[in-house]
Amino acid sequence: MKNRKLRNLDKIFHPKAIAVIGASTVPNKLGYVLMKNLIGNGFQGKIYPVNLKYRKVMGLDCYPSVLEIKERIDCAIIATPAQTVTQILKECAQKKISGAIVLSGGFGEVGHQDYEGEMKKIAEENDMAIIGPNCLGVINPYSRVDSIFLPMYKLERPQAGGISFITQSGAVGTCGIDLAAKYGLGISKFISYGNATVTNECDFLEYLLHDKRTEQIVLYIEGTKDGKRLLEMMTKVNREKPIIALKAGRYGGALNAAKSHTGNLAGNYLAYKAAFRQAKVIEAENLEELFDFVKIFNQPLPKGNRMMIITNGGGLGVMTADAIEENGMKLAEMELKTKEKIKEITPEYGSIGNPLDMTADASVDRYRESIEACLNDENIDGIFIDVLFQTPTMNEDILDVLNFASEDRRKPIVVTAVGGSFTEGYRKVLESSGVPTYGTPSEAVKAMRKMVDYSLKSKCRKCLIK
Amino acid sequence: MKNRKLRNLDKIFHPKAIAVIGASTVPNKLGYVLMKNLIGNGFQGKIYPVNLKYRKVMGLDCYPSVLEIKERIDCAIIATPAQTVTQILKECAQKKISGAIVLSGGFGEVGHQDYEGEMKKIAEENDMAIIGPNCLGVINPYSRVDSIFLPMYKLERPQAGGISFITQSGAVGTCGIDLAAKYGLGISKFISYGNATVTNECDFLEYLLHDKRTEQIVLYIEGTKDGKRLLEMMTKVNREKPIIALKAGRYGGALNAAKSHTGNLAGNYLAYKAAFRQAKVIEAENLEELFDFVKIFNQPLPKGNRMMIITNGGGLGVMTADAIEENGMKLAEMELKTKEKIKEITPEYGSIGNPLDMTADASVDRYRESIEACLNDENIDGIFIDVLFQTPTMNEDILDVLNFASEDRRKPIVVTAVGGSFTEGYRKVLESSGVPTYGTPSEAVKAMRKMVDYSLKSKCRKCLIK
Repeated sequence: MKNRKLRNLDKIFHPKAIAVIGASTVPNKLGYVLMKNLIGNGFQGKIYPVNLKYRKVMGLDCYPSVLEIKERIDCAIIATPAQTVTQILKECAQKKISGAIVLSGGFGEVGHQDYEGEMKKIAEENDMAIIGPNCLGVINPYSRVDSIFLPMYKLERPQAGGISFITQSGAVGTCGIDLAAKYGLGISKFISYGNATVTNECDFLEYLLHDKRTEQIVLYIEGTKDGKRLLEMMTKVNREKPIIALKAGRYGGALNAAKSHTGNLAGNYLAYKAAFRQAKVIEAENLEELFDFVKIFNQPLPKGNRMMIITNGGGLGVMTADAIEENGMKLAEMELKTKEKIKEITPEYGSIGNPLDMTADASVDRYRESIEACLNDENIDGIFIDVLFQTPTMNEDILDVLNFASEDRRKPIVVTAVGGSFTEGYRKVLESSGVPTYGTPSEAVKAMRKMVDYSLKSKCRKCLIK
Repeated sequence: MKNRKLRNLDKIFHPKAIAVIGASTVPNKLGYVLMKNLIGNGFQGKIYPVNLKYRKVMGLDCYPSVLEIKERIDCAIIATPAQTVTQILKECAQKKISGAIVLSGGFGEVGHQDYEGEMKKIAEENDMAIIGPNCLGVINPYSRVDSIFLPMYKLERPQAGGISFITQSGAVGTCGIDLAAKYGLGISKFISYGNATVTNECDFLEYLLHDKRTEQIVLYIEGTKDGKRLLEMMTKVNREKPIIALKAGRYGGALNAAKSHTGNLAGNYLAYKAAFRQAKVIEAENLEELFDFVKIFNQPLPKGNRMMIITNGGGLGVMTADAIEENGMKLAEMELKTKEKIKEITPEYGSIGNPLDMTADASVDRYRESIEACLNDENIDGIFIDVLFQTPTMNEDILDVLNFASEDRRKPIVVTAVGGSFTEGYRKVLESSGVPTYGTPSEAVKAMRKMVDYSLKSKCRKCLIK
């Protein structure tokens, strides 16, 4: 890491010892859940609970102040009332702790800009990286750091992987963690930064640019304090790692809500939209788009917009074709050799076109052979596989076929499977092995469109290599 | 039922005796799954398998022809190859069977218009109602009729209720059945009508207008043969029972696919769009919208577009507010008495506005009291309740509070809950008791907007009564 701020941030994500200030033995208290999660999540470093009231918390020695701890501390997680935080941070500085996460609320968002001023001053004078206040903090599944104060039985934690989240809102962060776990998405770093007093979204973008485990970045933002740097940083980072961004707090009412929410000016939505366009960042307009887009980016980037549809459900194919045209992509015209290959395996009542409607009696083998033929077809840039898992001739072998297609890596494939619990079970298997899977045709198509855009417009390094 | 066609259709939905022509003892064969489902689904009338090859099917006497059956038959379900269907229908006519479902494919959709011509002639000469060919047929959960040839372990069946489905595509029908079951939606009639040779979407709309159990209609259509009557019928029916319609096969490629799919001309999408608008039918642009819209219509119709947001997740409230303004609705301005009531229960760091952000430490009681205050507020036409079930202070009592709010019936409420398996468990409980529940803010808002439109523009009987 080239500068000290980034090095200090890096210590927050990879601490050898953490002090939990406000640790508690009272169930459901923030400082209790926090301790429980750190221990339960398997953090391998040392944990030092700090609280005047206790001598032991969850079997660990508890200290009245960080100054009483003899060992070196890399990160302080602070979960005490706002009015106590300045004094605590001063003690952290005295103890030479270079990084802190302030979870507590009660700062700028309720008019206490003064507390934030003091926090800033301490950070500057002592060269500290502070995340927050009024936030959830971080998760790093690689180092098992987890400052999220929501019980693990209510909020699943995602597996380790390549997606990093930067979120201004803790609530949206909560949703992000939970949905990432649900969709089997692996994360590298999760950062909920709240009021952004000392470190903000720009610092995190810069940090993630250098983080080798991060391949893709999700950014939820309500407002920024430094629009110019944000634009610069988005442009720079997006060239290397695709950024999917959602700007909330766009209009009158929501703007005010966003302001009282994290104390930031939400600013003009059109300015953000223009910045996203200029930086070639992928904009998601809502939460469902955000996750639909994230899921597809583990696929190879498409070289063009000529799309093929393979299905055993006629109506699904029709809807996918509609969405492809509505989203400005093209239905691929198969090469002659592909048509001939497919003709061999198609019963006479089947039709060989795009959509390729193999009808409801299609077997797993017909899927396998058609997909293989389309992977070999130079006229096809991406493949939509719409499967009704519910038909009598489908069986679990289809999962291997789809997984194999996804791992082929010559072109992006996405699976659309609509249905209830049986279908969801199959989808879960596919998602957990990284096959992008959607619940309706139009969701899948919108996501592919975003990847086509990124591939053709962003001129990212990844695309140039290919 | 006023005319004979409708009476014959009604017998298909309420038969005392069914002949299953093409019944089979070979697992995974259509005629096997069909028999298994009819028996397994608890059909209480008589079932007569018909197949030259067998003397018994699943323990029931099997007949070589319907003509060998002595007892009266109300409905024949035909699952034999296309070329055999004409002869079978003639025998059905001779046996005075007034209704038939032809599941078999291989008709107009693959160039065999001649078979359909014969079918039409037999129906006319003998006054028969025939559904299909190339379809899934029907479900009536009240009479336990079920001609869907997909295994029940792969395709759940919905509970009985007030929503009826009319679908041209069997694949989309499959998805509809499965999603209705998943979302806990109760259905009255499910009709997959395929090539629409004898009875078409207009007949079904007319039938459902008179069906007392049907309160709401979902229509998936690719093309019609009688646009004028469709417009008339939609206009007439939509006044009494809201119709949510999805037109697929909109553009060049999809148009061709739709044609080869059920042999119907898909026609100009703009003409359909105009017809929906004229009939004041609610158009869904894709499958996810279709179900998002269906879910909300069990709520009382809103009297206006002034919407309130109550949340324990700031960012969720901000996104909901964005979506409300983007969808042309208004953020409600609470009455003074509501604000005072809410002030009493809000800690000093909370803000009393719209969105009402009760912050992450909101208790179930605070939700209950705020919702109650908003239900009593004349300035509020609808309420969005955005809940993070994941916070430490939430517990299962919130489910009672939300259920109670939904049953209040003074104004529509919708719940948005984003999350993974814990949250989904809670959502499932709410859905199964009829509380409309969404996975993201914008989905909920779009659905509410459709209900506002229907309430204010459609001048339906339901709205006039209120």
